[in-house]
Amino acid sequence: MRKQYIFVIKESFFIKAKIYFSHLFFSSFLLLWTLFNEITNFNFRFFMSKVSINEINVLAPASVANIVCGFDILGFALNGPHDKMLIRKTSQKEVIIINKDNYNLPTDPPKNVIGGALLALLDKVNEDIGFIVESTKIIKPGSGIGSSAASAAGAVVGANYLLGNRFSNEELVHFAMCGEEIASGSKHADNIAPCIYGGITLVRSIAPLDIISISAPELFVTILHPLIEVKTSDSRGILKTQISLKDAVTQWGNIAGLVAGFMKNDYELIGRSLIDVVAEPIRSILIPCFDEIKNKSLLAGALGGGISGSGPSVFMLSKNEATAKAVELAMIKVYKNIDLNFHTYITKISSQGVKIQLENS
Amino acid sequence: MRKQYIFVIKESFFIKAKIYFSHLFFSSFLLLWTLFNEITNFNFRFFMSKVSINEINVLAPASVANIVCGFDILGFALNGPHDKMLIRKTSQKEVIIINKDNYNLPTDPPKNVIGGALLALLDKVNEDIGFIVESTKIIKPGSGIGSSAASAAGAVVGANYLLGNRFSNEELVHFAMCGEEIASGSKHADNIAPCIYGGITLVRSIAPLDIISISAPELFVTILHPLIEVKTSDSRGILKTQISLKDAVTQWGNIAGLVAGFMKNDYELIGRSLIDVVAEPIRSILIPCFDEIKNKSLLAGALGGGISGSGPSVFMLSKNEATAKAVELAMIKVYKNIDLNFHTYITKISSQGVKIQLENS
Repeated sequence: MRKQYIFVIKESFFIKAKIYFSHLFFSSFLLLWTLFNEITNFNFRFFMSKVSINEINVLAPASVANIVCGFDILGFALNGPHDKMLIRKTSQKEVIIINKDNYNLPTDPPKNVIGGALLALLDKVNEDIGFIVESTKIIKPGSGIGSSAASAAGAVVGANYLLGNRFSNEELVHFAMCGEEIASGSKHADNIAPCIYGGITLVRSIAPLDIISISAPELFVTILHPLIEVKTSDSRGILKTQISLKDAVTQWGNIAGLVAGFMKNDYELIGRSLIDVVAEPIRSILIPCFDEIKNKSLLAGALGGGISGSGPSVFMLSKNEATAKAVELAMIKVYKNIDLNFHTYITKISSQGVKIQLENS
Repeated sequence: MRKQYIFVIKESFFIKAKIYFSHLFFSSFLLLWTLFNEITNFNFRFFMSKVSINEINVLAPASVANIVCGFDILGFALNGPHDKMLIRKTSQKEVIIINKDNYNLPTDPPKNVIGGALLALLDKVNEDIGFIVESTKIIKPGSGIGSSAASAAGAVVGANYLLGNRFSNEELVHFAMCGEEIASGSKHADNIAPCIYGGITLVRSIAPLDIISISAPELFVTILHPLIEVKTSDSRGILKTQISLKDAVTQWGNIAGLVAGFMKNDYELIGRSLIDVVAEPIRSILIPCFDEIKNKSLLAGALGGGISGSGPSVFMLSKNEATAKAVELAMIKVYKNIDLNFHTYITKISSQGVKIQLENS
């Protein structure tokens, strides 16, 4: 027969135990919550880099090159519109492009801006890695607000993220220029640099590449996009290969004034410096009613502006949103009188370039 | 018989009175001293403007125009050498120039830089006022470090002081350009602007005149002055009137980089941007051993440099005085091997332009 032990437990014991366990539960919860926050907040990047991410969404912004007098050297990123890309990393050397829009762009990588940029990047990667890109272009090709640069820059920034950010911004500009070359026929970085660096960028030199970020005050941008196509290669072709020293001096005086105006946050100086005596007098003939658009925009309060990149889009800078809207109305009023479709946007110079959005990990 | 009054004064009264009067004396002294300080310190300018000053000494600094890539738009004032002028106001419309040096410059006002500048200024003065200028040139004419600009700027800043500073800096630049025109054959302000404003200046535009001060970090300047004369008009004459668009883009990329480098206090960017593909390749043939001087200066640690103005002086920028001295030694070493007299200076970019010294009031 087994011994029997009888424990008599007072009711007060249960009350104490209840309090004790509820304390224990609460402190454990606090400890775990703190640990969770530590990991997610502070070690997010480290943590994510250890997790294999194979697919991301990319938003690649439109951009304005030249900025009137800064032909081939200045550019800024816009707060929108953005091209969208879904980029998936694969385990073999390949670039596959799937168009999710109706622009019928070539999908053969060496003939496609995204393809050209990614092939240049993969050339510097030793592993068996490739990319499948589903591209949804929102920025119309040939609109003059950096459509090809958005494709090229978005692709390489996205791919670099999937590779653990192993390349520098400068290297990414190099790769993206190989894509841009397919669209425009020449390697230039005045749209790509702001797409990758954000804000306003100066491409001091292409070889060796020297990109400088230029600070600036808040600037609103009104864009008029006449629905005609002007190819970058055509728009470059009509420029004179020789210019007078006198015009060159005028132009670099304005470029120096524009850079100083941006960096001094001097809106009036920015406005006074937005004069182009080299490209605008020639290129503007390709844009219907350019002079009227410009004059009416200035009357509506714009600081200044001109052809975006090589056109046909026209951009105007304003100190505030109300003025940018007044400028948009003035533009619409001019274009409503002619038989031509067009779009207008109001946006801002964006300090951020290409944006990454995680899809699946 | 007159009444007699006898006053008995206790000794304690005298002690109290003594204390009282010493207090009164001390507080009166304090009050007067404070008033005197108020007048001399705070109201000095107002006080002096009410006193007729008829004679002043002026120190007008040498300056460097172009700053390599900034042809015709950029310039900076030097901390020395300075031209000296004694300017006396007279009570009739006249300009009398007395040379106190051995340069035998013309004294006929319309043919003299000082004269031309002062005649332009007097053209805007309705009273019967004139100036006698005793000029002692220290900056050799034709040396390329703004000798004529120092004369023109010094004369108008001094004259303006004697007229109670009635003209703005911008108006003074206009007057001084009329003097500069006599020496160089064209109205340019790239030496005059820094002489009047001090520091580094950008002449964004001549008509309308738009001068912008550019901030910069401390910069030491080594100057080599080969004792040969290169006239500004000759040096301008050999330049091509047409340049390739490609060269123009390179040049304005460097100008934008230089302005950004100055304003960001980025010595490396300043150095990288000091490249001139327009004037230097042509003008440097007028300066003996230019390429060797430049290469050896860079090896000695200079950030960069080139022809000062239209030459023959050569300038090099350095981060500190020790480097500026090493650059001077490197320059001397090159020039000691050739049969040519020369001077060297070590100076700094000066935030001050023309200096006024009061003589008699």
